[in-house]
Amino acid sequence: MQAFIISIGEELLIGQTINTNAAWIAAQLNQVGSEVREVRVITDKKTEILRCLREAEDLAGLVLITGGLGPTRDDVTRDALCEYFDCGLVVNEDVLGDITTYMERRGRKITDVNRDQAMVPEKAFIIRNPYGTAPGFWFRQGDKSFIAMPGVPYEMKEMVLKHIVPALESTPREQHIVHKTVLTHGVGESVLLELIADWENNLPAAVQLAYLPSTGIVKLRLTGKGSNKETLLEIIGRELEKLKQIIPEYIWGFDDDSLEGVTGRLLAKKGKSLATAESCTGGFIAHKITSIPGSSAYFKGSIVAYANKAKEHLLGVSHDLLDTQGAVCRQVAEDMAAGARQTLEADYAIGVTGIAGPDGGSKSKPAGTTWIAIAGEHEVISQRFAFGDNRKRNISRAANAALAMLKDYIERL
Amino acid sequence: MQAFIISIGEELLIGQTINTNAAWIAAQLNQVGSEVREVRVITDKKTEILRCLREAEDLAGLVLITGGLGPTRDDVTRDALCEYFDCGLVVNEDVLGDITTYMERRGRKITDVNRDQAMVPEKAFIIRNPYGTAPGFWFRQGDKSFIAMPGVPYEMKEMVLKHIVPALESTPREQHIVHKTVLTHGVGESVLLELIADWENNLPAAVQLAYLPSTGIVKLRLTGKGSNKETLLEIIGRELEKLKQIIPEYIWGFDDDSLEGVTGRLLAKKGKSLATAESCTGGFIAHKITSIPGSSAYFKGSIVAYANKAKEHLLGVSHDLLDTQGAVCRQVAEDMAAGARQTLEADYAIGVTGIAGPDGGSKSKPAGTTWIAIAGEHEVISQRFAFGDNRKRNISRAANAALAMLKDYIERL
Repeated sequence: MQAFIISIGEELLIGQTINTNAAWIAAQLNQVGSEVREVRVITDKKTEILRCLREAEDLAGLVLITGGLGPTRDDVTRDALCEYFDCGLVVNEDVLGDITTYMERRGRKITDVNRDQAMVPEKAFIIRNPYGTAPGFWFRQGDKSFIAMPGVPYEMKEMVLKHIVPALESTPREQHIVHKTVLTHGVGESVLLELIADWENNLPAAVQLAYLPSTGIVKLRLTGKGSNKETLLEIIGRELEKLKQIIPEYIWGFDDDSLEGVTGRLLAKKGKSLATAESCTGGFIAHKITSIPGSSAYFKGSIVAYANKAKEHLLGVSHDLLDTQGAVCRQVAEDMAAGARQTLEADYAIGVTGIAGPDGGSKSKPAGTTWIAIAGEHEVISQRFAFGDNRKRNISRAANAALAMLKDYIERL
Repeated sequence: MQAFIISIGEELLIGQTINTNAAWIAAQLNQVGSEVREVRVITDKKTEILRCLREAEDLAGLVLITGGLGPTRDDVTRDALCEYFDCGLVVNEDVLGDITTYMERRGRKITDVNRDQAMVPEKAFIIRNPYGTAPGFWFRQGDKSFIAMPGVPYEMKEMVLKHIVPALESTPREQHIVHKTVLTHGVGESVLLELIADWENNLPAAVQLAYLPSTGIVKLRLTGKGSNKETLLEIIGRELEKLKQIIPEYIWGFDDDSLEGVTGRLLAKKGKSLATAESCTGGFIAHKITSIPGSSAYFKGSIVAYANKAKEHLLGVSHDLLDTQGAVCRQVAEDMAAGARQTLEADYAIGVTGIAGPDGGSKSKPAGTTWIAIAGEHEVISQRFAFGDNRKRNISRAANAALAMLKDYIERL
């Protein structure tokens, strides 16, 4: 069944909030064979909501609406739904009970504003909300469904996972969708295009290929659509094997893999430990590594040596070296890596020093100049990178480059 | 002039990529008085693109399209535009030159694929692309504009900032939009609602209020629309002053302020320095602090002591304490903060220890249990927090709580 997502909220239209809800919902729907035909973002105005409901009804069988169900006066979704489905509001005792419990747990009394949230459209099935005060509404019209949920991400997610996904799963499916994404680095889109042209031209009709480039990484997404899931998985698996033989050196992962996840698995498998010494990345590499559950099994810690004194005292970088060559040079990166490896008693360590920018650069070392070193048992390797003058992008690129270097280093051992 | 954003790309509809482009464009347009009426995400299909172009033309005067201009076969935006505006393709020598230069700089030769990208719709003005191979297209139809740009964020941003924003700035405006957002913490939406009800009821007609709740933080956005920008700024400024007197203890910043930015400014103003000792936050606090340009003036560094040995050796936490009470307790947090303050020679230090989850919790210390300490010149203060079992959310909440605690501590001194 095709789906249509309507995200309601002025904050989305003025660019204050990024629409993460729609992407998350789309990913869940895909898992159960439902394709999203369109995502639409509109403001909290009844006329706009009514216009989109009409158009959505023409284009899809499942309409998911988020936002505008809160207690404040800019929330008009419930009113718009009542008008669209031509019904009034009634008190729902379950919801009133949920809200009372919710407020009591927080040591507060139920207010008139809360009480109003227990008034629900009489034609809607109610989806109860364990994490907030606004319930969800599920309307059925012929074989079409319209489901309205709060815009607060964790409240919405609970409703999708507990109610909508199970309902879709139990519906007989005409179509299955299988996605497989191949993650590459070290090669640009147009070169890749030529390398895999023959393979791409011979893809079976049921499989489509998409290129998704971002800084330093190109993702190749294979999508198969058909009535039999096993057949699709088999076809895509076969194409994947062919692709692996064409560009083995550029592929580092699949689907939702992250460089920190892949590197972490490698460390865990080899029973080796890691530490980092970070200057310009300011702890971002450590943060990426520790965002992986179970990373405490292989990650010892990091010394974020922002001040030069910290580089000297905690990592053993020589005062003279910092004085004569400055903090951004090959030797400092290597000494930082070696220092962290020793101090934090790790098998491997990453050392990063650079000019994150936008200021602090010079002619010979412009903003973005970065040295990355990897210290192992018998050697320290290092490489210079030239990124740009965007601070956030530099920090992110340096972290990815360091993790990719480490991964290659461990694999070569 | 009202705007309409069309984001094209299957990756957005399957939830693989989050639509950050639309939010960024919307924020830029608002700055120059243009409101976004709708954002629409559709797939790379000519029929879908044509349908949305028709509908967008009815609803807005400025239509911005991103995505689908790349060299691969899933890119069909250029074809759709040619059909919509009934025109053919011609070679553009400037674009061909740009692409040749772009490839030469990377040590590569121009390919047929690249050459095809120099073919442009004959009715379009061309927006050249210094960062990639796909140019932008600007079509005018009566008093309406349709502008297509690549979906790669930094290529699109350059075009918006260098071409679209200046063009809008030089257009006489009928309307100005002024946004001002007040950032609060320590108070929930429904309590806030009652605290400021009188003020909200008496807001002038030109000003609208919106509530934007997220974990631990509620944002209040005031929006003024009218023909005179100065008058709007004055009205909103006056309402802001009233609000500050009603809830002074909950307001910590405005607009794009971040806790790390506000805390950093406070440190810089007082000439004080900061260090962090992080266990469960794994370097995330250091990363937040160092994402602020100029943070090297007040940030000394961090010891990310993930392993207990690192807590002992680098922060002086006693082996016996770790043995008897475990790593997650008040004394460890306090000793970590005091240790970082001393080792990194800082005026203040944050210490954080907790169970990030999802695993590692126990009955007395469930996942999310977190101790945060602040070490100052004469004292160490600490507080226990109970977050949830979502690892990423716990890390983020702990970082925000630590920064808020530090800010309050410095302000109280």
